Amino acid sequence: MNKIYKITMLSVLLASCGLRKQNTMVIQEQGSFAIGGTKIFEPGNFDLNNALKPQGQTFHGDHAYAFYQIPVKARKYPLVFLHGAGQSKKTWETTPDGREGFQNIFLRRSFGVYLLDQPRRGEAGKSTVAATITPNPDEQFWFTQFRIGNYPDYFPNVQFPKDSPALEQFFRQMTPNTGGFDGNMVSDAVAQLFDKIGEGILITHSQGGGPGWFTAIKNDKVKAIVAYEPYSGFLFPKDELPQPIKSTGLFGELKGQEIPLSDFNKLTKIPIAIYYGDNIAKEPTKVWNKDHWRSGLEMAKIWAATINKHGGDARVVHLPEIGINGNTHFPFSDLNNVVIADLMSKWLQEKGLDK
Amino acid sequence: MNKIYKITMLSVLLASCGLRKQNTMVIQEQGSFAIGGTKIFEPGNFDLNNALKPQGQTFHGDHAYAFYQIPVKARKYPLVFLHGAGQSKKTWETTPDGREGFQNIFLRRSFGVYLLDQPRRGEAGKSTVAATITPNPDEQFWFTQFRIGNYPDYFPNVQFPKDSPALEQFFRQMTPNTGGFDGNMVSDAVAQLFDKIGEGILITHSQGGGPGWFTAIKNDKVKAIVAYEPYSGFLFPKDELPQPIKSTGLFGELKGQEIPLSDFNKLTKIPIAIYYGDNIAKEPTKVWNKDHWRSGLEMAKIWAATINKHGGDARVVHLPEIGINGNTHFPFSDLNNVVIADLMSKWLQEKGLDK
Repeated sequence: MNKIYKITMLSVLLASCGLRKQNTMVIQEQGSFAIGGTKIFEPGNFDLNNALKPQGQTFHGDHAYAFYQIPVKARKYPLVFLHGAGQSKKTWETTPDGREGFQNIFLRRSFGVYLLDQPRRGEAGKSTVAATITPNPDEQFWFTQFRIGNYPDYFPNVQFPKDSPALEQFFRQMTPNTGGFDGNMVSDAVAQLFDKIGEGILITHSQGGGPGWFTAIKNDKVKAIVAYEPYSGFLFPKDELPQPIKSTGLFGELKGQEIPLSDFNKLTKIPIAIYYGDNIAKEPTKVWNKDHWRSGLEMAKIWAATINKHGGDARVVHLPEIGINGNTHFPFSDLNNVVIADLMSKWLQEKGLDK
Repeated sequence: MNKIYKITMLSVLLASCGLRKQNTMVIQEQGSFAIGGTKIFEPGNFDLNNALKPQGQTFHGDHAYAFYQIPVKARKYPLVFLHGAGQSKKTWETTPDGREGFQNIFLRRSFGVYLLDQPRRGEAGKSTVAATITPNPDEQFWFTQFRIGNYPDYFPNVQFPKDSPALEQFFRQMTPNTGGFDGNMVSDAVAQLFDKIGEGILITHSQGGGPGWFTAIKNDKVKAIVAYEPYSGFLFPKDELPQPIKSTGLFGELKGQEIPLSDFNKLTKIPIAIYYGDNIAKEPTKVWNKDHWRSGLEMAKIWAATINKHGGDARVVHLPEIGINGNTHFPFSDLNNVVIADLMSKWLQEKGLDK
């Protein structure tokens, strides 16, 4: 009950000086920085009298951006949050309907938090490759893909607010790539982050899952991974690659990715928890969003079994199977996100990661 | 000494419960949201079976993003920070050499802070117009334009760290437009922010200055403006437009902008402070960066005189004239940024804006 003890002690301390229990976050340190990335140098000499000519000038890009907050009496391992496709660090901040996200929830639970914008996204927009960004009307696709419902219908039990202002905030929290997605570049930057901050726990969402696994392979300061609804990017040892999983999902069949056994084994050295929400098909179906995530969940189960067969500690939790219903692709910001946070806290405690 | 009193009381409270004086920020509330913006609707009906076709789908964009923190015992008026060209809310966060920026400095002084990404920038990347982003090597230009020095030379007295890691962080904090800059769109979003949060004080940097003036014209909840090195976007009443100011700066001559007297008069109802740093020419010169900012400073003085002639309260502070030397285009993150913050605190107190 170390966590409870800490929270209680902090509350007593705050109450004793008239600061509102529950309603304050006492921050020891906070700030932001760029991490990782590369640099372009245009050959030639910089001419101060022709300063708009590129010769002799540099362009730094492909870095990640991190905003961090360390509370007083912080626990040993901070949480590093990596967003998914089309998202940014906003994923972990205020929810679409204005409640607190995992950033605040885990700050209040005395964890340091690092919120990342991956390279070529959000505040880390400088890309060393060109990109054209076009406003494609596609939000009803995302509504459906992210399992809020089958547009325009909400799933009856969905843990997503059904008012239009919340849905508008949800749509506006997406932000485009300013250069092509490069998972290896992402994991390089996140691995460098762990070199800078030391040991910690990596929390990934969706497309962030793949780079998350590679981050742990590249840096043993990653002490655990919690992955919310990873889809692609599951890594298997040579000769243990499973058959692709066919799906009516719009991304087609789902394949694993082969890596050297020596790399795979690194993922057997840390505890891993993977969570999936509700309204995912149990059997193949033509309902493409439910079938897309069926293939992801099935691959995750095969992957975890492979990790564990090699002596690892991976757990896949399909939330409805433990009585938690209605979650979308964004469990950490759904209406029941405190329940989802409690699950993660309990797992971290079980693994001795919340000291 | 109301400010000092508050800080002292808070310190005593914190000390009394074992929290480190100076080194903690006690946050009552923090979060983020999208504000303003528009929506594209593609005519037709959404087809769940062809969900990637745009017909019947929406695209929300052109909003601003705001991250806010409200400390306990917050002062009446929060500070709203609007960045300049090529920048984001990072402008106000950790400095390139890892010191605290205005975000933390003013949180510690009990102000609520709102850090904005303007529409089509950073976390607010969704743009309703297309854009192509290219990695143009131009950082030695920016080093010079922003008056760190005349590349590769630093100005001898410059208040910018001379180590390369700091310069790299400075270069990496720039982030591109994901759509064309639209000052009217920016001021619309910031004006809507003030409708949401109520009365407050607007702090602008550089290109943010122009949208800043229009925000105050659009919304009387803007109780004061502090503008750091505004360049373009100075607004004059019909028939009072000054002659353009010629400059060897790379942006050429600087013009004022004509607006109706009724709008101009709204800017005479609030206190306005404008600050410029060092290494700005006093007379026309061929040194283009020093001459660029000479034209900006001269226009600012003409503008403030016009505001005051109409009964307003505008002050232009050229920092070297009050003995503060070496500041770049980013005084709020320069090595002496606490001195710069003290100046702003003192001005807010003089105007009764720090209650």
